[in-house]
Amino acid sequence: MANEKKGFVQAITPQSEDFSRWYLDTIQKADLMDYSPVRGCIVFKPDGYELWERIQAGLDRRFKETGHRNAYFPLLIPESFFQKEKEHVEGFNPELPWVTEAAGEKLEERLAIRPTSETMIGHMYSKWIQSYRDLPVLINQWANVFRWEKRTLPFLRTSEFLWQEGHTAHATEEEARVETMQMLDIYADFAETEMAMPVIKGQKTPSERFAGAVDTYSIEAMMKDGRALQSATSHFLGQNFAKGFDIKFLDKDNQLKYVYTTSWGASTRLIGALIMTHGDDRGLALPPTLAPVQVIMIPVGPPKARDQVMAKFDPLFDDLKAAGVRVKTDLREETPGWKFNEWEMRGVPLRLELGPRDVQNNQCVLARRDTGEKISVSLDGAVARVRELLQEIQENMYAQAVAFRDQHLHVELETLADLEQHIEAKAAAGELAGWALLGWCGDDACEAKIKEVTKFTSRNIPFDPPVRKTTCAVCGQSAQHTVWFARAY
Amino acid sequence: MANEKKGFVQAITPQSEDFSRWYLDTIQKADLMDYSPVRGCIVFKPDGYELWERIQAGLDRRFKETGHRNAYFPLLIPESFFQKEKEHVEGFNPELPWVTEAAGEKLEERLAIRPTSETMIGHMYSKWIQSYRDLPVLINQWANVFRWEKRTLPFLRTSEFLWQEGHTAHATEEEARVETMQMLDIYADFAETEMAMPVIKGQKTPSERFAGAVDTYSIEAMMKDGRALQSATSHFLGQNFAKGFDIKFLDKDNQLKYVYTTSWGASTRLIGALIMTHGDDRGLALPPTLAPVQVIMIPVGPPKARDQVMAKFDPLFDDLKAAGVRVKTDLREETPGWKFNEWEMRGVPLRLELGPRDVQNNQCVLARRDTGEKISVSLDGAVARVRELLQEIQENMYAQAVAFRDQHLHVELETLADLEQHIEAKAAAGELAGWALLGWCGDDACEAKIKEVTKFTSRNIPFDPPVRKTTCAVCGQSAQHTVWFARAY
Repeated sequence: MANEKKGFVQAITPQSEDFSRWYLDTIQKADLMDYSPVRGCIVFKPDGYELWERIQAGLDRRFKETGHRNAYFPLLIPESFFQKEKEHVEGFNPELPWVTEAAGEKLEERLAIRPTSETMIGHMYSKWIQSYRDLPVLINQWANVFRWEKRTLPFLRTSEFLWQEGHTAHATEEEARVETMQMLDIYADFAETEMAMPVIKGQKTPSERFAGAVDTYSIEAMMKDGRALQSATSHFLGQNFAKGFDIKFLDKDNQLKYVYTTSWGASTRLIGALIMTHGDDRGLALPPTLAPVQVIMIPVGPPKARDQVMAKFDPLFDDLKAAGVRVKTDLREETPGWKFNEWEMRGVPLRLELGPRDVQNNQCVLARRDTGEKISVSLDGAVARVRELLQEIQENMYAQAVAFRDQHLHVELETLADLEQHIEAKAAAGELAGWALLGWCGDDACEAKIKEVTKFTSRNIPFDPPVRKTTCAVCGQSAQHTVWFARAY
Repeated sequence: MANEKKGFVQAITPQSEDFSRWYLDTIQKADLMDYSPVRGCIVFKPDGYELWERIQAGLDRRFKETGHRNAYFPLLIPESFFQKEKEHVEGFNPELPWVTEAAGEKLEERLAIRPTSETMIGHMYSKWIQSYRDLPVLINQWANVFRWEKRTLPFLRTSEFLWQEGHTAHATEEEARVETMQMLDIYADFAETEMAMPVIKGQKTPSERFAGAVDTYSIEAMMKDGRALQSATSHFLGQNFAKGFDIKFLDKDNQLKYVYTTSWGASTRLIGALIMTHGDDRGLALPPTLAPVQVIMIPVGPPKARDQVMAKFDPLFDDLKAAGVRVKTDLREETPGWKFNEWEMRGVPLRLELGPRDVQNNQCVLARRDTGEKISVSLDGAVARVRELLQEIQENMYAQAVAFRDQHLHVELETLADLEQHIEAKAAAGELAGWALLGWCGDDACEAKIKEVTKFTSRNIPFDPPVRKTTCAVCGQSAQHTVWFARAY
């Protein structure tokens, strides 16, 4: 770690020069992860894992407040289970790792490491659900899952990742659809409130649907390179898995009926989303609500004045801690400038400096990570001011992200040719292409054409588009949908 | 679930009749788990998983308070890693499931699903640790692990289980030994304070050591059938893994040295320990600190008086909730007696009954799960009384468990013949054999002899035995150690 620490003061590749390089530099310098000896699998180091713990806490609280409970289902899924839902097996089979031997013997049936748990959970629900009185079943699972990936990118696309998967069963289609939307709203609320990351809610096109779903909904966020990142999905599964796994209940009218199911998930991808929403050329920038360290306290000034400084520094630390602020001190021997740089790279929202002159003036200096602003505040009101500032930073980071996104949403493009021209012009100007709102006739071929020509894929059909498009950008026929298209992670 | 619910009012097999049957009945009727279609793997249902969430919270808080941080390492471990520590591979190889194919291709090297992560973490630490300034490394991981088991028992022995594994690296042997003991103390404190489960701390004999450890320490608890359950272990690994994985650091004296490592773990076994420490013939009994529901509120009396009762019932519920009590109401149509029975089976520590006569007298009735006692308390002081009672129940459950254990600890047996006689006499009297404190010369053969003859295995060498034994129970030579022996899970 000593070697890596020295690395912190070296430059991070600027975003405008090479965004991918910037991303990898940033996560390495913030010490969030490491590569592992198993292809496609990463190690979540403590600073990275703590972001996940805080994401988990924020989501878990919301799931429980809406009546869901956690459970845990087996990691391994018998091969035969995948055959029971046709689209599901086609969607996931190419990505599965298989356990074929255990305890020195060949297994009679191969077991897949779960890519998701609809099949296992469907099987269990068919045992648990008999009557309308057993419904709804509202269960969530926090788990590791595998999808064997060829090209991986830390947090965003790894063979093993951590996630939560909610699985619910309902007596009626209406109730299941309400659940699907409720969970999408919960993801959006979490993203916007805690991650300070604005998202667009909408429905996926059929080609982007979850394998086995009737309808898939997503929240999509814009990254600093103008690309889209699908940040969470919520699926209305209809009766597809109920039929595949024979999940039936005796309804009040004494009829045996299939249940309606939903599933919804968010993963450690959100760590990547957080980094690419707020990071800048100085490295990571974390919103106070999720930041493991909200305030870093650094004493400044000559060593001979240190005792005098510490006499104010230590009580201030205690007061901040007592007020519930996640505060940390850096008392190492390195220069203040080196430390400022390091904690900026690590994304700490607020730096508190205290030197001998500050002590004389009964004040300290607060430096904001989001704006770079330096503010002198009286030591008497410092705790209250820190708390206010953390709130202000949270709000400002959200506002900044909204402004950045809105600046890169393009609703004025009408045709595929417009989009091509737009992408070329932006590239020539060294600007970001952003997202394009286009009309779509509903034909898979037109959607595929856009991807083929521009690499822009459909993100979602927003519930509330800023403009309704009337003609398909590709074929010129009447538009059935108004769709966001973008390069995506 | 409707069918299962009807099952709740049927009898649970008495402990004295068949303890294993009692255990399976109890966990089924409390709806804690279900069997899965994958051999040896169980489903943790919400009521079972919530116990694990509370155990996790109690342990995680203690780990963090002592400076540990969580991280996450890959599930799959390359086969070659197991070869690097000789005893480790011998210990775990027979239990491993292997991934041999992924994404349609045969893998070049087999990957094991982790049985524990010393090897993977050792590999990463060798990259992270360069200097004495990088030490100590204090990391914990919450994870699923696999050990392919032939005979399984829910929570106690399953092929997949959930656990935490702490892995630390230190510059000196002394510091690593202090860490090993600190973590053992933390487990003991958690078990006694939150699980209300007394434990005996001690060192494992060489035959019961963790594969690759220099010294293994455990906490051992007595179950209601007199058997022992190893509830957590803490290992001093010396430099074994440091040498296997080349974890070296440059010390202050400019010498390159191997680190000393420790590991320590506790698992979903603790759920089984909790059940078998406190459960009785009425089913589960949960200590208030860990109980998902601390107080179940049940309105009683005729339907025509219900409105009058609810006028007091609802505000009381709100007051308890506001006071931080985990309270739940049961307003279903079943009879009060049926509900009393059900919530007793589910182990809820305190039942609150409110009927029309209670309302007239401005009181409610509190029934303790631990003693069966019914107490009338004024509605005005009900919240305070409930909180006091929960504390009293927690303390009493611990005291009851201590008394039960102490009653079944046998320090008076001196020889293997004594132990055989004791076991026979207890069996004839229909009493529990409990544990026996015996002298041991230190020879594996003497230890093995005791197991062969009595099925009693060495549990641990307690730090503070009630008596010091001077001669080996088997060979009569001078005793090197005073050891607890017992039938164990």
